[in-house]
Amino acid sequence: MTTPLQYAAEHQEQFLNELYDFIRIPSVSTQASHKADVVRAAEWLRNQCLKAGVTRAEIFETPGHPIVYAEWLEAGADKPTVLVYGHYDVQPAEKSDGWDTTDPFEPELVNGNIVARGATDDKGQMFMHVKVFEAFMQSTGGFPVNIKMLFEGEEEDSSKNLPPFIEAHKEMLAADVAVVSDTSMFAPGIPAIAYGLRGIVLGELVVEGPVKDLHSGMYGGAVANPIHILSRILASMHDDDGRIVVKGFYDDVRELSPEERAKLAEIPYGENELVAETGVSRSWGDPQYTIIERMGARPTIDMTSFKGGLLTDGVKNIVPQRAWGHLTCRLVPNQDPHKIFDLLKAHIEHHAPPTVKVTFTKRSANEAVLIDPNAAPMALAVEAYQAVFNREPLFLLEGGSIPVVKDFMDMLGVPTVLMGFGLPDDNLHAPNEKFALEQYELGIQTLIHYYESLGR
Amino acid sequence: MTTPLQYAAEHQEQFLNELYDFIRIPSVSTQASHKADVVRAAEWLRNQCLKAGVTRAEIFETPGHPIVYAEWLEAGADKPTVLVYGHYDVQPAEKSDGWDTTDPFEPELVNGNIVARGATDDKGQMFMHVKVFEAFMQSTGGFPVNIKMLFEGEEEDSSKNLPPFIEAHKEMLAADVAVVSDTSMFAPGIPAIAYGLRGIVLGELVVEGPVKDLHSGMYGGAVANPIHILSRILASMHDDDGRIVVKGFYDDVRELSPEERAKLAEIPYGENELVAETGVSRSWGDPQYTIIERMGARPTIDMTSFKGGLLTDGVKNIVPQRAWGHLTCRLVPNQDPHKIFDLLKAHIEHHAPPTVKVTFTKRSANEAVLIDPNAAPMALAVEAYQAVFNREPLFLLEGGSIPVVKDFMDMLGVPTVLMGFGLPDDNLHAPNEKFALEQYELGIQTLIHYYESLGR
Repeated sequence: MTTPLQYAAEHQEQFLNELYDFIRIPSVSTQASHKADVVRAAEWLRNQCLKAGVTRAEIFETPGHPIVYAEWLEAGADKPTVLVYGHYDVQPAEKSDGWDTTDPFEPELVNGNIVARGATDDKGQMFMHVKVFEAFMQSTGGFPVNIKMLFEGEEEDSSKNLPPFIEAHKEMLAADVAVVSDTSMFAPGIPAIAYGLRGIVLGELVVEGPVKDLHSGMYGGAVANPIHILSRILASMHDDDGRIVVKGFYDDVRELSPEERAKLAEIPYGENELVAETGVSRSWGDPQYTIIERMGARPTIDMTSFKGGLLTDGVKNIVPQRAWGHLTCRLVPNQDPHKIFDLLKAHIEHHAPPTVKVTFTKRSANEAVLIDPNAAPMALAVEAYQAVFNREPLFLLEGGSIPVVKDFMDMLGVPTVLMGFGLPDDNLHAPNEKFALEQYELGIQTLIHYYESLGR
Repeated sequence: MTTPLQYAAEHQEQFLNELYDFIRIPSVSTQASHKADVVRAAEWLRNQCLKAGVTRAEIFETPGHPIVYAEWLEAGADKPTVLVYGHYDVQPAEKSDGWDTTDPFEPELVNGNIVARGATDDKGQMFMHVKVFEAFMQSTGGFPVNIKMLFEGEEEDSSKNLPPFIEAHKEMLAADVAVVSDTSMFAPGIPAIAYGLRGIVLGELVVEGPVKDLHSGMYGGAVANPIHILSRILASMHDDDGRIVVKGFYDDVRELSPEERAKLAEIPYGENELVAETGVSRSWGDPQYTIIERMGARPTIDMTSFKGGLLTDGVKNIVPQRAWGHLTCRLVPNQDPHKIFDLLKAHIEHHAPPTVKVTFTKRSANEAVLIDPNAAPMALAVEAYQAVFNREPLFLLEGGSIPVVKDFMDMLGVPTVLMGFGLPDDNLHAPNEKFALEQYELGIQTLIHYYESLGR
């Protein structure tokens, strides 16, 4: 009899080609022009689940993009039920952003890496679970545990419609543990489990001056320039050391215990690693905290886009009608995203001069989450990594946000195990996003071990 | 016999239709995609000059866009020679910028206004001279003065190739006086002659951080955000009162004499007029100077565009690889644009932290210019306005820059009379640019009077 591991080994090429087909559907959730592609990706995914052997696969409409749900519950009442979560939507991507391949949505294998938008975030990673399920079903005729798969199409658009969906389908989604593959390993050969995820609050900041663009030669010097005002507001949020000076911003921050700081200090990552990974000449940020702490255990404010004046090529000598930007805060446990938004709003209004109109609008808000690293499903994950990578995973605080982890905990009472197989240089949200083919294959092997041990 | 004024009155419709044809050629000089359109506009213009009756009309190639030159020198050696300057290139324009008409390059007559890109800046205004020449030639068989017409296609791109062209064609361009119609009247019914023009220095400021866009969740807090750095640099250039604090920036500024300030104070323009024109809630800028002084007699710094992160729709939670902007200074007499650029560069370098790479590149630099308001050709212009508008023009300091005026003075020794017929609300460089049809017709009448008196 073939084992799931053998099946996976024998079907490597098929597994890769199917992932390529998935990636080719440009399911960009934040761009209206791709709405039909998102629907197409959902349908493609449902068909894949059916082909793999689920007993139920449905597409649920939402006010935004659809949710795909599939299940196989034949393992028996004595076996645990696992809820798998992933997202089939991706970040925007244009060849002109700086992609070295022909097309961000046409995957190419370059130096052993699958280069394409969504390769690692999250199509490649979530698809592993579908393929692992198929490997068990085709080789053994069953799966070691009851499995429920929940795939959403709005993760890159703040998962707007997921929480009400979970709330409305508590019984359908009931499970003993959730597994999410949407994070990274620490380095090649060094797996990691995230036990904390930062929260997020995203606001859109608009500064409006004159009713129309003005000739800068005629009105410059007499009319406040919205670009300057937005810059001054932004510049007022940090001191020269990179510490946030928005009143009350740090008030509720969970301070790290000496034990936790000591444990984080063991992680082999510092100035040199950051410089090598990002190409900056040196790190930046609050000097009271280490780089690892700044990246996962401390809250941040970043303006992620700023637009004013002529955005295409050319020169336009104007005082523009408006300037606007997206302000993204990463939050840590105990910070209330809505309270933080209000603090930011108060700060902005305090720093906005009466010569302009300033509006700050909440676009999304999610709390940070912390998972008990000593829970049983965590211990089994450690064993699965040990079996494939020959070493224990590191326990990390992730800087990014996966709001669903908090929702699973609060609404379903289900802890989440974050088993990510990406690598730190995967260019998430950037040009030349990639997923190492080897990681795709090792990830599948690790998940086979994990599901086997969960069902034992 | 028909007079030139009668001819112009009888050919209003033809004059308008020809201007429409001219406007329909989207001769945007700063966008490579419009290169062929700029050439087409030059050819169209040369044919118009020939049709009007010039004895010579040539297109001169330059390293950039072509220059159109036309002349008629049959008035006789006892008559003065007038050099007319205009530009047939226009600012960029897209329907999506906020145009209320169907297409920025398809003129529409709305409430008596020709609405289109280039309607007033400068196609409509420069074309009046061609039509006035035609009116004289067709009605009287000659022109009152010798006339040379110089039309460039790079004014909106800093007139890069014009100064060397003038230098190389001094004899061809020799004249007694230059006339330029590229400015505005003070208000409907209140003509104005600009006796001063601000200079300009334009620099491109780029802040580069990581080698690629980074996930803001992973790296936020540990890597300096180029948008923040650019904002902090920009915010450091003015104090809270709008006074520029770049070291040495005001050192060479020509201070206004008490007489000049008194004369400028007579101009009926202040807070109420600025608010009505621009829609801002109140004015901004150095409180030591009046609004009229800030708009024409004081130097400025404006960031005219700022780009960082995702510039299209959607959300991209990144620390972007770079942020960049155009910094435009308007300069007053005695300020050396190259010295000002160096002062800015020193300021920028002083305020740039070592975590990023900052570059500041000079894109254009032109001195301010001051024209003696008591020169003879100015007096005749006053008479021409008096004849058509029944009142004397105001003498203004214009905030915008027309570098050629300085070049004519320095290279050809020719003073320039700035007879502009635009109105202050013409939306130059902005959506819904317009030129009032009445201004087009009154301008043609005024120029007929002016050329007649110059030849008398």
